[in-house]
Amino acid sequence: MKILVQKFGGTSVGDLERIENAARKVIKALEKGYKVVVVSSAMAGETDSLINLARKITDFPNEREMDVLLSTGEQKAVALFAMTLRKLGCPAVSLCGWQVPIVTDKVHTKARIKKVGTQRIRNLLEEGYVPVVAGFQGVTEDWEITTLGRGGSDTTAVALAAALGAVCEIYTDVPGVFTADPRIVPNAKKVPYISYEEMIELASLGAKVMQIRSVEFAARYGVRIHVRSSFSEEEGTWILPEEEVMEKVVVRGVTVETKESRITVVRVPDRPGIAAKIFKALGDAHIVVDMIVQNVSHDGYTDMSFTVNRAEAQKAEEIVRKVAKEIGAKEVVRDDRVAKVSIVGLGMRSSYGTAGKMFEVLARNGINIMAISTSEIKISCLIDEKYAELAVRELHEAFIEEEDIEVEKGGG
Amino acid sequence: MKILVQKFGGTSVGDLERIENAARKVIKALEKGYKVVVVSSAMAGETDSLINLARKITDFPNEREMDVLLSTGEQKAVALFAMTLRKLGCPAVSLCGWQVPIVTDKVHTKARIKKVGTQRIRNLLEEGYVPVVAGFQGVTEDWEITTLGRGGSDTTAVALAAALGAVCEIYTDVPGVFTADPRIVPNAKKVPYISYEEMIELASLGAKVMQIRSVEFAARYGVRIHVRSSFSEEEGTWILPEEEVMEKVVVRGVTVETKESRITVVRVPDRPGIAAKIFKALGDAHIVVDMIVQNVSHDGYTDMSFTVNRAEAQKAEEIVRKVAKEIGAKEVVRDDRVAKVSIVGLGMRSSYGTAGKMFEVLARNGINIMAISTSEIKISCLIDEKYAELAVRELHEAFIEEEDIEVEKGGG
Repeated sequence: MKILVQKFGGTSVGDLERIENAARKVIKALEKGYKVVVVSSAMAGETDSLINLARKITDFPNEREMDVLLSTGEQKAVALFAMTLRKLGCPAVSLCGWQVPIVTDKVHTKARIKKVGTQRIRNLLEEGYVPVVAGFQGVTEDWEITTLGRGGSDTTAVALAAALGAVCEIYTDVPGVFTADPRIVPNAKKVPYISYEEMIELASLGAKVMQIRSVEFAARYGVRIHVRSSFSEEEGTWILPEEEVMEKVVVRGVTVETKESRITVVRVPDRPGIAAKIFKALGDAHIVVDMIVQNVSHDGYTDMSFTVNRAEAQKAEEIVRKVAKEIGAKEVVRDDRVAKVSIVGLGMRSSYGTAGKMFEVLARNGINIMAISTSEIKISCLIDEKYAELAVRELHEAFIEEEDIEVEKGGG
Repeated sequence: MKILVQKFGGTSVGDLERIENAARKVIKALEKGYKVVVVSSAMAGETDSLINLARKITDFPNEREMDVLLSTGEQKAVALFAMTLRKLGCPAVSLCGWQVPIVTDKVHTKARIKKVGTQRIRNLLEEGYVPVVAGFQGVTEDWEITTLGRGGSDTTAVALAAALGAVCEIYTDVPGVFTADPRIVPNAKKVPYISYEEMIELASLGAKVMQIRSVEFAARYGVRIHVRSSFSEEEGTWILPEEEVMEKVVVRGVTVETKESRITVVRVPDRPGIAAKIFKALGDAHIVVDMIVQNVSHDGYTDMSFTVNRAEAQKAEEIVRKVAKEIGAKEVVRDDRVAKVSIVGLGMRSSYGTAGKMFEVLARNGINIMAISTSEIKISCLIDEKYAELAVRELHEAFIEEEDIEVEKGGG
């Protein structure tokens, strides 16, 4: 059986007309000879309106009940989707998470999938039905309803594709992954192929298309994903194992994150355990720390900088001020006007001079680099926020628009 | 364990404020020492809006998918109800039909309950939780979602009360069962006690309060029901086994049904099997026939009249016209301006003169009787629709407002 999992996001099933449009994509795939499994999100706006309802009752709605409440959104959508398929002459059967079953752990509102039952779906496929599975929801071994957290329908689709050995199509409201945000870089191009790793590193670009956790899931099981628009016929972006990505460019995309803050602890005594103290305190407060930079020590003292999400900057600063006092640091400085610009690409591994060129591009435009961090396939620079868009445009021009030349210049 | 099942109808959970009001009734019962099981309908309007959504897709939505769709209404309500109870400091756990489980047959959109699991509910009660059960929905042995048909939440509540040996409170938007429709008879009184049988015969009065099928269910298992208003503290109407109804009045209530039509087949050859032919044809078309009157035969011919719901009168007439031709009847006459007025009461069994008095009251007011039908505890007369309200008022005055005198006059 050639099985295709087609996942439709909230905007793709936003009203009955759009559900019908989605259903026609299913029928087209059937006509091509695929057995199709549909995964549907809740209709756009539904989940938010349910959350708002719960918030009107209490600021802290019980999480178990929240899952019971939210899971109605997808249940409604799959019933309507199956009805629509039947109207179009295609036998279809909706399935809630517990009917598949999508078995999860017990962590309500952000459960993880433990096991995917495939027997019922396989039976339905063999009998000629299209199973329409409610995304985002699961069931514990104690028959409690769970949900997988925001974007969880992507994870449902990828998990089903993994369990069924299927290809996974993700239908959304954008045509694919771009080399940069087209609102910043008008010349940004749609990427035809991208590796899981690149997709994960390009989170800020990719997240508009697909939930990153589900890409990690896909990477683990080697699920081939095709993200594409519900509203056109054109090919989108394939997310594939590295070895299947034909064209290994040095830089696949340029991203920027602007909601960052930098906190610097000035003149920290350079003793073992000091850094641990600072970051344990932040970890205990569930604050996610991004870039961490520690300069070389002079006369027994050093400066330590890190970035956090701007929404958490105030809280982080307060925590760090307390620790700074304990450890005898001179002062704590916070800068809310920073941005992180990054270039990402598999080709970086086998190419030299990429970092140097990036710094050169920034310098040439008068952009000062406040901090640098690198991974195997990504280089990030912290810069003044006011240069964020300029930096992205210039890096995109240098690395992507002149890409072909770059590839020739580079090389292992 | 003294268990109380409290069922709240759609208007009683119509918005978050009303859900909180309902939750306070639960807490009051807990304070009185009861263990409480809540059954909730969908929020008022929810089911209709889901039906409308499905109807926009197709005139004949698949019934299995209809059940998946509609069951989200109650699921949403119980999650919000449980959240509200928790906010008020009362540990509560919502349960969908499949989680109880409420096991039904496979007849989608009007399933019948086959079995009610009580173990999970009993465990929750023992652990101090209030189980909040989604009304109206069940699950088949194949794990398919079913619904019980309109008013099915009452049946859920009664079935749970039967299984748990509990008393059943039905909270609704009227204060109880009345001796007549108060909009027609300003002197109508709330009935403190009524037997299952009387309640069933008073369907047209009772149905505003409680679904009649659930009363039949209660009768079978002897479940004591208290129907009362969500919006006051006053006692409502107890629906009880006959032997517990203290006050056996001759006439418990007066009802009228105005959406009736009468169809008469004139000069039917009086041969065996003729009536069967007519009513089998109607039955095959799923038309419910109410009163049937056949006059004594003269010269081998008779007239046969029956009433049907006015919405089905046209269809019924067409069917009967065909049969009439086959059997050689003279003609078929339809009258859409008829009403059925009835008096109902357990005391009728042991009282004489009730029918005569009813006919006398109608005659005294110049109301002609077109047909009569009787059961052990009910007498119905078909009359011209324009006299419907007058008849109800006069019968109410004669049988209810002068009730005390009547009881003394009557007797076995």
